[in-house]
Amino acid sequence: MADLRTYALILAGGSGTRFWPASRRARPKQFLAIAGERPMIAETRARLAGLVPDERVLVVTSGEQAPLVREALPELPPENVLTEPCARNTAACIALAAFEVERRDPDSVQLVLPADHVIRPPERFRATLSAAAAEARRSHRLMTLGIQPTYPATGYGYIELGERLGEADGLPVHAVARFVEKPELERAREFLGSGRFRWNAGIFVWETAAILEAFAQHAPEIHGALRGRPAAEELARLYPTLPALPVDRAIMERAENRGVIPIDFAWSDVGSWPSLAEVLELDAEGNCASGGARLLAEDSAGCVVYGEGGAVALIGVQDLVVVHAGGATLVCPKDRAQDVRRIVERLEEEGPELL
Amino acid sequence: MADLRTYALILAGGSGTRFWPASRRARPKQFLAIAGERPMIAETRARLAGLVPDERVLVVTSGEQAPLVREALPELPPENVLTEPCARNTAACIALAAFEVERRDPDSVQLVLPADHVIRPPERFRATLSAAAAEARRSHRLMTLGIQPTYPATGYGYIELGERLGEADGLPVHAVARFVEKPELERAREFLGSGRFRWNAGIFVWETAAILEAFAQHAPEIHGALRGRPAAEELARLYPTLPALPVDRAIMERAENRGVIPIDFAWSDVGSWPSLAEVLELDAEGNCASGGARLLAEDSAGCVVYGEGGAVALIGVQDLVVVHAGGATLVCPKDRAQDVRRIVERLEEEGPELL
Repeated sequence: MADLRTYALILAGGSGTRFWPASRRARPKQFLAIAGERPMIAETRARLAGLVPDERVLVVTSGEQAPLVREALPELPPENVLTEPCARNTAACIALAAFEVERRDPDSVQLVLPADHVIRPPERFRATLSAAAAEARRSHRLMTLGIQPTYPATGYGYIELGERLGEADGLPVHAVARFVEKPELERAREFLGSGRFRWNAGIFVWETAAILEAFAQHAPEIHGALRGRPAAEELARLYPTLPALPVDRAIMERAENRGVIPIDFAWSDVGSWPSLAEVLELDAEGNCASGGARLLAEDSAGCVVYGEGGAVALIGVQDLVVVHAGGATLVCPKDRAQDVRRIVERLEEEGPELL
Repeated sequence: MADLRTYALILAGGSGTRFWPASRRARPKQFLAIAGERPMIAETRARLAGLVPDERVLVVTSGEQAPLVREALPELPPENVLTEPCARNTAACIALAAFEVERRDPDSVQLVLPADHVIRPPERFRATLSAAAAEARRSHRLMTLGIQPTYPATGYGYIELGERLGEADGLPVHAVARFVEKPELERAREFLGSGRFRWNAGIFVWETAAILEAFAQHAPEIHGALRGRPAAEELARLYPTLPALPVDRAIMERAENRGVIPIDFAWSDVGSWPSLAEVLELDAEGNCASGGARLLAEDSAGCVVYGEGGAVALIGVQDLVVVHAGGATLVCPKDRAQDVRRIVERLEEEGPELL
């Protein structure tokens, strides 16, 4: 695939509170080893092994997180860690990186990947990315991967498959009928039942020229502001004025030359503590543990455990999230995990040193 | 009370697993600050403030725990920390200490106190001990305190009150009809219903001469072995040959000159994690926390929390024990807390470094 001149853009600007107390303001989820031996961003890079060499892996992150990126990915050239002056969602972030890739090689293909997803097995993922890149080269389409839905999720955007256009490396390529933002439950059920919808995982493959053309056409204010690759000071002035839009809305919903490869292998955005059960090995009672903690479970089932070393002992409990990290312990039923934000809100007033 | 020549004997030989992971082999419960700001043994000594001066407070413990005693009670003269060659239950332990007190002052009174109970308020406890000491002086009886039962406990011994003998310092003094070992539930219910029974808390007050006379009469093998105050080497040879009996059985069940002062103030032997709820302040939802952890509870009730600093966040859980200490976390329903021993048994094989 070297002849496709492929670059990887890893988007690592995310912050978030859903993995408190393991994730902190200063160390969000993509820097935690919650779903493997290495920080999620290092797993993301490793998943591309053999597909993209180090000098063509770029990471876009915040100034605060740049040192964590360099720590997690020491093999990358330092100039491959791009920093945004502030967070302006994925459209601005992708345009910033796309112009940098254009400077290095205007005739290149880009793989755009969130830093904090789990995708397995890596071989099938790499083969699918290769196919998408080949298709992007052939047809100049803006390609995306469509995840097979397993339940009527209301937290993801959906892609409706259009006509089948053909195959790339033996994988089916479809046109995109439409992108749909996070639906209500009833609609999500219809989507699931129809068989025509896929989850939008925010993974994109496109030619550098094609995406920049799409920005010029559909998001001209972003294109205009960033096309001259403004120097740091100028960028710091301009960037906050850009619209904070996801690339899905700024570009993908509007573009016409779109394509999607449906995939059916394991994907998770690991959006909350309970979702760890989707990506970790379960014991006979359905418990799982990560973070290095030894799990000692007696008469306990369906629990999700994360502990920084040491041990977590469970006796007679079901379907709990139990986390110990950074001096703080969290215990809640799996179906209350979204309320971690209530703890975080309290800590903003009462204990910011724990955030 | 100085003219009563009162000594305190604090029994601190206990080991145990019921407070894992906070208690470890090397640091059992009496050295933990689970029910106050200070280790329980330091609280026990502080409870005697003004009643017994430092030079008359003796602690009996094991060789391994002696450094912890000196750390918790640095104000005691080092020679006041007596060590047993091995654990032989309370009869041998009390005899060992009683002969040492006899050497220092044969005409003294002893207060015998477990190191790991919670008793409040201290003023009333001191007044009751003073009364018991006065009574022991007056009548030469072996005095004990009888705790008002609050439920049909099967884990405590009981004292049946005999005839009322009179008063000491305004408190009623009863003869002891009998000591009863831990009863079955049905019998415990009868005891509770009868109103004549009190819990035996293992707190004793007696003249040194009276207890040594009782040992001579009822436990002559212990008396004979220890009366010469054998030197370390000889003691190490003799001590393991002594019967391992509680003083209740070796002496109190057999003696005739017994007395009891019924008490109705707050007492707990804090025998398990759930019992912390009896001795700690509860929040509006009945949660309590100790160990220095900040408790952040949302929609949670009836939980017992212990954490060495940091924070413990609970969301939507009821009646759980949640502990983090020494790198290990424990979560179980309060009514499963006795099964901590199952974890401890597993660790004996799989992870002794966590014991």
